[in-house]
This record gives sequence, structure tokens and C-alpha cells, in this order.
Amino acid sequence: MTHVLLTGANGFLGRALASRLAQQELASLTLLDIEFAADLRSASLPSHVRLVEGDAGDTQVLAQATTPAPDVVYHLAGVTSRAAEADPAASLRVNVRNSLVLFERLREQGRCPVVVYASSIAVFGVPLPPSIDDTTPPAPTLTYGAHKQMVEIALADFSRRGELDGRSLRLPGIVARPAEPGGALSSFASDLIRELAAGRSYTSPVGPDASLWLLSRPACVEVLQQAAGASARELPPSRAWNAPALHTRVDELVQALCRRFSSEIAGRIGYRPQPVLTAQFARWPPLITTLATRLGQRRDEDLDQLLGRALAEFPSRPC
Amino acid sequence: MTHVLLTGANGFLGRALASRLAQQELASLTLLDIEFAADLRSASLPSHVRLVEGDAGDTQVLAQATTPAPDVVYHLAGVTSRAAEADPAASLRVNVRNSLVLFERLREQGRCPVVVYASSIAVFGVPLPPSIDDTTPPAPTLTYGAHKQMVEIALADFSRRGELDGRSLRLPGIVARPAEPGGALSSFASDLIRELAAGRSYTSPVGPDASLWLLSRPACVEVLQQAAGASARELPPSRAWNAPALHTRVDELVQALCRRFSSEIAGRIGYRPQPVLTAQFARWPPLITTLATRLGQRRDEDLDQLLGRALAEFPSRPC
Repeated sequence: MTHVLLTGANGFLGRALASRLAQQELASLTLLDIEFAADLRSASLPSHVRLVEGDAGDTQVLAQATTPAPDVVYHLAGVTSRAAEADPAASLRVNVRNSLVLFERLREQGRCPVVVYASSIAVFGVPLPPSIDDTTPPAPTLTYGAHKQMVEIALADFSRRGELDGRSLRLPGIVARPAEPGGALSSFASDLIRELAAGRSYTSPVGPDASLWLLSRPACVEVLQQAAGASARELPPSRAWNAPALHTRVDELVQALCRRFSSEIAGRIGYRPQPVLTAQFARWPPLITTLATRLGQRRDEDLDQLLGRALAEFPSRPC
Repeated sequence: MTHVLLTGANGFLGRALASRLAQQELASLTLLDIEFAADLRSASLPSHVRLVEGDAGDTQVLAQATTPAPDVVYHLAGVTSRAAEADPAASLRVNVRNSLVLFERLREQGRCPVVVYASSIAVFGVPLPPSIDDTTPPAPTLTYGAHKQMVEIALADFSRRGELDGRSLRLPGIVARPAEPGGALSSFASDLIRELAAGRSYTSPVGPDASLWLLSRPACVEVLQQAAGASARELPPSRAWNAPALHTRVDELVQALCRRFSSEIAGRIGYRPQPVLTAQFARWPPLITTLATRLGQRRDEDLDQLLGRALAEFPSRPC
């Protein structure tokens, strides 16, 4: 029976992974976040699930969250790309330092736990290369991506030493996030889906030809669990690889929304492309996810499936 | 007039750079190290030079060392590769965390100083690629190299943001270090030169065909100063490049020592190759240092020049 720790458990991804994990047979499930929403705090949780609320950089909070010593850690906690660009010192503290402190703590416990780290395709910077596979060297041009790469390197080193069994999974845009002012810089794809599906208008900050890598939240939860379950023997020394994603365009996304709801949707989208955002977030080249495929990790099959999964949790109304 | 800060000023490289800098016209020169040797502590220093002794991770020590705010920082402080492998937590604290804390402090001062960071060719791991140039992606297989790479990435990000003007120079084996038990893992080249030159015997932990990248300490000091003086416009976004080095073999080194002293030296070297050490430190492929060349950075011309410079500071006696 497995002891599992999930950091960032109150986040968009964390919540979905937490509710999946809560249904599984585990010795214990510890959900850590700096703050939990009221609904989670007051929820009646199964007896083996507990919330630890506080700053993961705080020694006492960390000690509490890692007792009992976890066998599997999903490390999702962090500030978003938008927050990292706005306040790099906060990203350095939360995304880098707290990750290193967590890894050190896990090393000291001496159990060599599996550590699944939610890295990001933001480790690839602009100009984006003509295609990306698992061997493409990271070259971040966002603070968020630079800090993700630093943690990947640390985790690979702990793994090389046999102290942690790390897996850095580079996640693409996950859809559909709820509206949040300080969210990921790439969240426009979520905004577009959510707003148009809800019958509202949307002005896209990238053009109709924008190319994206997308993964629905349910597919992402599955992929994270598969990363934990993979055999260490199948992993490269970097312990880092690209999650599968659907390579699509904004105009294709709009067409799929029209198919799903009504062609009237096409009239409710406008475009005001922002060059800087476009260069980093809307020029994703073909993606070859050799290792993910070998591990059985699957993207959503097509846009219809992706939309169905992405919207399952939103109250959508037909236009 | 320039305010200069040098960290690791009591180290092998730091001392040589400090004495060079002390002869230059600077507004101030601050020498920082955790501890200074007695000769330095009691030396009568020019009025614009001062020693700051203490842990750079300590806020007060750091505040003292960065007042006045430096225009140029040479960041040489760190634990050696041997110490990093033996105690990775210490390397994480000293080599990574203290570097990040220093960079944060410099950022807060708002002067965008030039920061020359003594990185290392240990960012390249085993198996070493068939040749290495400035575009070869780091793939460390030593904790020391992993931590160096993490700091390179952080410095590049601070530089991209216009907060620091970073230059990560990847240094090869610097010769000839004095005998020190906890020194660099690559210090066997120094040991070989020093011991054979001093008329003693030496058993090499790598074979006669071992291929090395070497740079004499005086050449290295020059190269560090050129890194500080280079125009930021000439630097890649990574702000990292390989220092020039003489690509040579252990048997060639022994021959050069024979030429310099006596052919009798060839009889005083034995070989007991260690495979792990050899793979990382004695299989260096051809090195193409395009950027260093463009910046006017020069390696020692040949082994005779390298030995002359490397041994200038050692009491050597003809055999």
C-alpha cells in the first residue's frame, strides 16, 4: 500500500488529480497547498486523505506533509507563468527553492520515492525550433521555463544518485482552465473554449493560424499517473520528456466548437494578435513524443474528444 | 571607476585574480570568502581593497560584501567537484542556493552589474560527445556539473530580463593547483605536473592516452577578465560559453616535462587508470571555442608555455 503526497493540490490540475487519487486504494493521500478552497476544506474526506495547508517552504509544514514518508510524490505546486514573469523572485522562491527543499527532504527520508514533477513546454523558448522531440535541448526564454528547467536538472541529479526516482513531465496547455486573472500565460486557449462554449464573445490574443499543443485535464491526470507508474529503466538520464498533446490551430478549435454547439460561434470570435505572446505560445511546431508513446501515454484523440473532456466540468449552454 | 566584487577570493583561482585586480585602477575591490588564509588576512592591502570574511549565504555578510554596489562581480565561490559528489546537499546550498541569493541581491541593487560566473566543463557528462563547441547542449552526470548548469540557466534568465549582465565561462582543468585533499576531481593533472616537476614520483589515475583540456592559471585569470570586458551584444542568450583550453594527452604532458627538466622524469610516472574518473575527466574530445576566439580569449599556445606558466609559482628543482 502506497503513501502519496500531492503538492499544489488546490490548483486546477491538482484538484482533478486529487479526486482521482482519492478513489484509489492508497495507504494515505496527503494533499498539500498553501491554501485550500472552502469546499475542499469542509469536504468530508475519506479517513486516509488529509489536507496540509501552508507554505511548502516552511520546515514544519513540509515535515507534516512528508509524514508518513511518501512513496510517490506528485509535485505540481508552483506559481504560474504569468506570475513568474511578473515576479521572478517569487518564482525563484516558490518554483525553484521550494522544489529543492522538498527534494532534499525526500532524500533525507531515504526511501527513494517516485517524484513526478509537472514541468512545462515553456522550457522551450523563442524562436521555437522547427520540430520538437524528447532530445530537443531546452532553451527557455521565460523565467517560468528557466526555473522549470533548473528543477528538472536537480531532479535528474537526485535520480542519477539513486536518492529520488524522478520523472519530469513537460506539460502542454491544459484545457479548459477556469477564468483566473493570474493564470498561465497560455490560458487563452482555455479562455477561448470556455467563453465561446458559454455563449459569450471572445477576442483571441493570437491569430486563427496560431498553432497550439493542447491536452484536456482528464487526459493530463491520466498521463501524470502513467508517469508515476513507468519503469525507471525506460527513462532517459534527464528523466524529462514531453507529455503527449494534440497539435492544433485556433481556427480548427473554433470549427470544432461550431460543430459541437452552433456555427453561430464563428461570429463571436475576434482576433487581436499579440506578437510576443504569439511567438512563445502560438507557434508550436510538430511534436514527436516517442517516450510518451512507448509508456502508453495518450493525448486526446481529436478536437471533438478534447472538447468533450475539457468542457465536461463546465456548465455549458448550447448557443 | 569601477567597484568590483570577487567571491571565492581565497581559492586557487581567486587568489590569482585578486592579486591581478589589486594592481588595477578600481574604485574598490571587495574580496569575499568564507575564510582567508593568514597571509592574506595580515597583508597590508591598498586602501581600496578590503576583505569580507563569512558565509555568502548569510544576509549580513552578503550585504557587507555588496556595499558599495558592485559594477563587476567575479563569482568564483563554490565547493569543488569532489566535495559536491561527496556531499551534494552542501553543493546545493553553496553552489546553487548561495549563487541565487547573490544574484537576487545584485538584482535588487538595480545596477545590472556584469557577473562573470566560473562555470565548468563538468556541465558535459559521460559519455562525452565526439566533439564539443559552444552549441553542445550540457548533459551533466556529476552533481557539480548539474549545479553549475542550474546556475548558468538562472544567470541567463536574469540577463534576459536586463537585471544582470551575466557571463558563464566554462572552465577546463586549471593547472597547477597546489596539493589539496578535497580539491577538484580533475586535479590529477595538477598533481602530475607538480609532483613530477618537484622531482617526486607520481601514479596517474588515468592512462597515458588520457585526453585533457588544460589552461594555466595565469591564462585563466586573463580569460576571466576578458569575459568581464566582452560586449553583451556578442554573447548568446545562454550567456554561457567554453573557455579556451589546450587539448592534450597525459603522455604529451610527460614528454613536455621531460623536455623542460630531464628525461629521467619519464621513469617516475606510473599508471593506475580508474575507469569512472577516466570517462569523465580523461576523454575530452576536440574543443571548438568559437566565441572565446572571437572575444580574443586565448589558451596557452603549447605545452611548453603552459608548463612555464603553471609552474611559475611553484618551487621546482631540476631533476
